[in-house]
Amino acid sequence: MTDPIRLGIAGLGTVGCGVVKIVQRHAAALALRAGRPVEIAAVSARARNKDRGLRLDAYAWEDDPVALARRSDIDVFVELMGGADGPARAATQAALAAGKDVVTANKALLALHGHTLALAAEENGQAIGFEAAVAGGIPVIKALTESLAANRITRVMGVMNGTCNYILTRMQGAGLPYEEVFREAAALGYLEADPALDVGGIDAGHKLALLAAIAFGTQVDFAAVELEGIERITIDDIRQAADMGFRIKLLGVAQMTGRGLEQRMSPCLVPASSPLGQLEDAMNMVVLEGDAAGQIVLRGAGAGEGPTASAVMADVMDIARGRRGPVFGQPAAALAQARPASSSVPAPYYLRMALLDKPGALARIATVLGEAGISIDRMRQYGHDDPAAPVLIVTHKTRRAALNEAIGAMAGTGVLASEPVAIRIEEV
Amino acid sequence: MTDPIRLGIAGLGTVGCGVVKIVQRHAAALALRAGRPVEIAAVSARARNKDRGLRLDAYAWEDDPVALARRSDIDVFVELMGGADGPARAATQAALAAGKDVVTANKALLALHGHTLALAAEENGQAIGFEAAVAGGIPVIKALTESLAANRITRVMGVMNGTCNYILTRMQGAGLPYEEVFREAAALGYLEADPALDVGGIDAGHKLALLAAIAFGTQVDFAAVELEGIERITIDDIRQAADMGFRIKLLGVAQMTGRGLEQRMSPCLVPASSPLGQLEDAMNMVVLEGDAAGQIVLRGAGAGEGPTASAVMADVMDIARGRRGPVFGQPAAALAQARPASSSVPAPYYLRMALLDKPGALARIATVLGEAGISIDRMRQYGHDDPAAPVLIVTHKTRRAALNEAIGAMAGTGVLASEPVAIRIEEV
Repeated sequence: MTDPIRLGIAGLGTVGCGVVKIVQRHAAALALRAGRPVEIAAVSARARNKDRGLRLDAYAWEDDPVALARRSDIDVFVELMGGADGPARAATQAALAAGKDVVTANKALLALHGHTLALAAEENGQAIGFEAAVAGGIPVIKALTESLAANRITRVMGVMNGTCNYILTRMQGAGLPYEEVFREAAALGYLEADPALDVGGIDAGHKLALLAAIAFGTQVDFAAVELEGIERITIDDIRQAADMGFRIKLLGVAQMTGRGLEQRMSPCLVPASSPLGQLEDAMNMVVLEGDAAGQIVLRGAGAGEGPTASAVMADVMDIARGRRGPVFGQPAAALAQARPASSSVPAPYYLRMALLDKPGALARIATVLGEAGISIDRMRQYGHDDPAAPVLIVTHKTRRAALNEAIGAMAGTGVLASEPVAIRIEEV
Repeated sequence: MTDPIRLGIAGLGTVGCGVVKIVQRHAAALALRAGRPVEIAAVSARARNKDRGLRLDAYAWEDDPVALARRSDIDVFVELMGGADGPARAATQAALAAGKDVVTANKALLALHGHTLALAAEENGQAIGFEAAVAGGIPVIKALTESLAANRITRVMGVMNGTCNYILTRMQGAGLPYEEVFREAAALGYLEADPALDVGGIDAGHKLALLAAIAFGTQVDFAAVELEGIERITIDDIRQAADMGFRIKLLGVAQMTGRGLEQRMSPCLVPASSPLGQLEDAMNMVVLEGDAAGQIVLRGAGAGEGPTASAVMADVMDIARGRRGPVFGQPAAALAQARPASSSVPAPYYLRMALLDKPGALARIATVLGEAGISIDRMRQYGHDDPAAPVLIVTHKTRRAALNEAIGAMAGTGVLASEPVAIRIEEV
């Protein structure tokens, strides 16, 4: 046994308390596996006197996370406050400046400032561990940076927001409309204070940007992620997709194309029989594709006290064992700036529209698609009570730009009752 | 950049050639990610002049793997020969004695001699990486030793022999009998020279023993694995299991019980809708359960040139980055000897039998089960042309010992046309 490794934990919410519990409960096993004791030296949170059901009196208390980050008696600053800026960023910067290693579950912080923070950390060989920031307990950061270190990564995909997956699978299972399940999710406490972080795809987009940076050796670039939320998905979309053997998922896809780096977080149709299609409830799944390893699928809980704390502690254990590597898998100084490519990879699309009952309406739509060079794979018109007829088209592979053009031209036909909904069908 | 890390590769079969290709193809990326060049210094194989479609002339050649292992110009001995004893063992021992780190894909070697080899390696802080030995490209060793390092592992499960999974899913999909699919698999080159290694569960049992050692902090103990192959599974079992919503898998399960360590590799029924139930073809899947992380499912190719070479190189990259830890996740000297527990965890069972057309036959079987304290959940008797009637029983949870006792007693009833087949139903 050598010297203990001493943690300073900023943030005692669900995850922070989970970390404290693991350190207290598994002290002997952690020491054995790390080769040295793992100890908590100090903690910090907003409310000192809140009852968290934990004994914290053995740890020094700091009201200010920046002061915690600078304490001479901590080796690793564990940032579990959240937020891209404000105290989380200030304290992380302070910790790095004071020579501490950092472990964080903060996807927003890293998606927006990860490159700058990595440069600062690597200058002095310090670590920033962020396994907990992406897909909770699923070891996807380690899989990419270490297990697939000898691969050229060809594609990264994932369902990385459990709340959205809960909403979509609940709509499917119970046949309930979006609004009702959204209210249900809110009542269960599944939604962030700003629900757009979840249902707008922002939270999942942060995670995708981090994975893309590692996978393709580029500077993390959240601004370039094409974001689309699940707010416009109706129960009809879900039913009709199911009818054709698909499921709708909020799916992130990152791939390097000849035209640049494509990063999309948007609702997609995936085969109901695929691992992604079968992912239920609040589970997360990440699919990594490497030129040697092939396709690796990782599934687990993407959030929650235990899973996220487990991932935080995996990073702590690595640091305790003396394992520090470049934050994004190769030196930050060597990471290229990615050229963003907007959905350049062709795909089939699902297209839902409401057609007015006019003679030749369907022919006009088909003509518009044909003129845009888009051919139709399958088409269904459903019976209806409304004045407008629900029509569903699955196209052959096309570029999103061509499809957008066609949708624009459809508006001029005067046969649409509302704006069409287009959802990409992803080959998984 | 610092000094290159120099590999000596023993064995130039599928995996060895795959490793050479990766080092040649991705030299720049490997150097960037490892922080130092990764080079091959010397190789060894049985036939020097065989055309492998690779340029090997830049590497020194050794006919003798032991001589290769001792070369002063290699840092890492990469053992890809296979076999629990003989040259693979001798060369690995020689490499450790000469101060080299070792990377191996050899499950048999480690399942039988892993503890002794780990003790030897750890004496001088050398590494033995064996990610490639278990489930090919799936990063399960790293997930257990590192990602779940802060968890108490509660159970490890997996489908870890692609050939068996191919046979079982092909029987299911094509409705073919075992013998026919076995011949098909042989013709495709899927079977080991000694097929019992595959269909007898030995190969998968080696892998399970390695996972159990890491998961439960015990000395690897292959001899204690309860092994049962897939040779007795009939197409009727597969059909009738499917009929009840199950799939049959050669499933490994390791868990620590109050009575000791349970390690089983045997055909099991799993729900058709579970991730394990949906695993098709030659794919592998490992399920890890931790007290904090919950259930993590890893899926990928369990064999083949690319996936296995990818895993070998992951270990090489770790060593190149200076990341060496205890072989089984905690010091080998601290690993306890496991007390083996024979299938002590109760489970429901599937029971197939052929009943002679005698009055009261079914009643006698039901009575025997009742007397053994085993209650029946579901029972089906199928129409038949044979003199014997196929009868299927699903029991409530029972211990294997009680079931074996009941099966023994059934023999005395005189109503059975053949020995019953019992398959455990695993909760996954």
